Amino acid sequence: MLRLDASRADFAAQFDALVNARREADADVSDTVRDIIAKVRNGGDAALAELTKTFDRHDLDATGWRVSEEEMQAALDGLPTELRTALELAAERIAAYHEKQRPEDRDEIDAAGVRLGARWGAVDAAGLYVPGGRAAYPSSVLMNAIPAKVAGVRRIVIVTPTPGGEMNPLVLAAARIAGVTEVWRVGGAQAIAALAYGTERIAPVDVITGPGNAWVAEAKRQLYGVVGIDMVAGPSEIVVVADAQNDPEWTAADLLSQSEHDPTSQSILFTDDAAFADAVASAVDAQIPQLSTAQTARTSWDANGAIILVPTLEAAMPLVDRLAPEHLELAVDDPDALFAMVRHAGSVFLGRMTPEAVGDYVAGPNHVLPTGRRARFSSGLSVLDFMKRTSFLALDKAAIEAIGPAAVALARAEGLPAHAASVARRLGLPS
Amino acid sequence: MLRLDASRADFAAQFDALVNARREADADVSDTVRDIIAKVRNGGDAALAELTKTFDRHDLDATGWRVSEEEMQAALDGLPTELRTALELAAERIAAYHEKQRPEDRDEIDAAGVRLGARWGAVDAAGLYVPGGRAAYPSSVLMNAIPAKVAGVRRIVIVTPTPGGEMNPLVLAAARIAGVTEVWRVGGAQAIAALAYGTERIAPVDVITGPGNAWVAEAKRQLYGVVGIDMVAGPSEIVVVADAQNDPEWTAADLLSQSEHDPTSQSILFTDDAAFADAVASAVDAQIPQLSTAQTARTSWDANGAIILVPTLEAAMPLVDRLAPEHLELAVDDPDALFAMVRHAGSVFLGRMTPEAVGDYVAGPNHVLPTGRRARFSSGLSVLDFMKRTSFLALDKAAIEAIGPAAVALARAEGLPAHAASVARRLGLPS
Repeated sequence: MLRLDASRADFAAQFDALVNARREADADVSDTVRDIIAKVRNGGDAALAELTKTFDRHDLDATGWRVSEEEMQAALDGLPTELRTALELAAERIAAYHEKQRPEDRDEIDAAGVRLGARWGAVDAAGLYVPGGRAAYPSSVLMNAIPAKVAGVRRIVIVTPTPGGEMNPLVLAAARIAGVTEVWRVGGAQAIAALAYGTERIAPVDVITGPGNAWVAEAKRQLYGVVGIDMVAGPSEIVVVADAQNDPEWTAADLLSQSEHDPTSQSILFTDDAAFADAVASAVDAQIPQLSTAQTARTSWDANGAIILVPTLEAAMPLVDRLAPEHLELAVDDPDALFAMVRHAGSVFLGRMTPEAVGDYVAGPNHVLPTGRRARFSSGLSVLDFMKRTSFLALDKAAIEAIGPAAVALARAEGLPAHAASVARRLGLPS
Repeated sequence: MLRLDASRADFAAQFDALVNARREADADVSDTVRDIIAKVRNGGDAALAELTKTFDRHDLDATGWRVSEEEMQAALDGLPTELRTALELAAERIAAYHEKQRPEDRDEIDAAGVRLGARWGAVDAAGLYVPGGRAAYPSSVLMNAIPAKVAGVRRIVIVTPTPGGEMNPLVLAAARIAGVTEVWRVGGAQAIAALAYGTERIAPVDVITGPGNAWVAEAKRQLYGVVGIDMVAGPSEIVVVADAQNDPEWTAADLLSQSEHDPTSQSILFTDDAAFADAVASAVDAQIPQLSTAQTARTSWDANGAIILVPTLEAAMPLVDRLAPEHLELAVDDPDALFAMVRHAGSVFLGRMTPEAVGDYVAGPNHVLPTGRRARFSSGLSVLDFMKRTSFLALDKAAIEAIGPAAVALARAEGLPAHAASVARRLGLPS
């Protein structure tokens, strides 16, 4: 864990190093992935089955390609009541928040008599990647599938690796709650290729979202343009801005809630009180051994954690903007004053009673958020990621007479005579 | 030019082939581009100068790195009045249309007492690539820079290759009208790398938009994630749906307005009248030799043009959806009836008096639109491409008591004890 003090002469250089440190793996898997994509594009289901045998060690014809609706319902029925209620509350709140993201259509006539508008529509089909193993989170299924559902996507498809054929029942239950009916037991770059190009069994989709390993991420990047994708995702991160009036145990738990995700996760505390900083550092050390995720949390905190002492919390805000963190907690009495200073953050958690983890599950806003300083230019997953806009235009004779001559002049200046002619002919001008 | 008849037995197969034909170059420039990016990232301005000498054949230190505001103003002052008025009308109408795209913030408290919201902000800096030579269109400068300006972007930067040091004065004038103050005489993949990583002279940007050749497109794709980018762009295309009540000369001009862009452009007519189809085909052949762009238009029309006879125009609409065209003209008396059937198109031009070219210049909606069937999942350039959304959340004691226990249950089920503890501690529960 790094301790910095903004009053020190070398702070600027040290903070620069922290901002520019890359925690993202640079594994060059692009050739392997290009090869896998080509195999699936050319070989369809046969290639998919062979790659699944190689990477996931199971025979799709034996375990079944697709999870039946009965299996999904059984997974839901088998959940303890507490978990089922929790998933249903989460689904309901996520749907309610995302409903309000649905964009409005436009259709108006301006002063020149030109009718102008835009109409939004859902994509036909969306594919959701669900990782196998440790990172198979039912909450992620809800966070990806529900915005697609709210957008009006007719077909939502899950692909997920099932090494040995086994599926996580919590994931299946969440898929059932979210209304997903199509789940395939395939994963890796080969599953992304199948979703993008389609195979005999799996019809292609238009948008692919969801987290994955380096191969999955590279496959999405290579297929960007063939399909739409969500943002390139890096390790999770949190910045907590807290004064000394916080309980250091709470702040420590908040920091650890990111550290426990992955050895490359990052947790950073800004505080204006050195004694509070020490108390949090001690609490983190005391709490780590209590966690079943202790090893990951320890590695992450030691390698990427930081506590930064600032003269005032206001002075921290430009520093926070440089980090453009995925998650930002403002644990003070008047968080709105600090929030007004924030330009770049994925999601902000206001006040002492708003731990980031509540947003991961049940609050409503999406937990798929930009990482690695990408909040400078990108947003969390939303209904808009599953929709597209068609602009439209209608002119009558008066309208084209009003604005057409300018189009003719510009088309000619750009050396595009057929553009000019298509307008000029309607104006009765020489083309 | 391909003639198809939907009543023929082999139509489905022929139309499939048309839909799946790839007009995008598969030039594998990825290694070259990766090398150029690394050079600029490591070598900064010195590398940029060397690459400019190699590819654009001019010495930046001699011609000047940056275009001065005086040069930009001189270009504007030097324009013929007709062109200046046309550019200003275009700029004003584009700004008016895009102003209405500015999204609204949200801030509400729900029944559980949870405060939920989203706040939009502009990116700090946007980079706009302007190609040199034939494709240096002042209209594209307006279409890219004005949405950024309307979004509230503080710094808008143009990079453009200037082989021999010469700049297109129309482009400079358009940049001046759009309020761009920073223009660099650099182009190619090296300019994209400079915008993404920054050099000694050029500060980095957050989003890069604008058209370019294969190297530029590949550089944007490789740097996607380091910066935001607009959509991957392919050759331009138009679909015209027209009945026999249209003037075949107008329809022919509309088709040629795409054919003249590039040998890989595509123009397709759907009509329900064989005699009208013949008349348009003849008009196209008669008009081509009159164009200064005849060679390009001829190549494009011969290789990629199509006229498709359909039993009714309604029957054409599902076929149009499969093409998901960049531009769609509905040249009929009641275009809204057909428009209601359209699911996938970048921009739609309604009625007989709305040639696509009017939308390229002065109508207001953006002319940067999804090509190559990408209207299935993506939208034209908009103010949103230069903004990002920060979601936020605030709970008080009552709110966390209402929804916190569900978060604890889900966190535990996902095997994330620190997530659970961060909520449980605030609830006074055992962590």
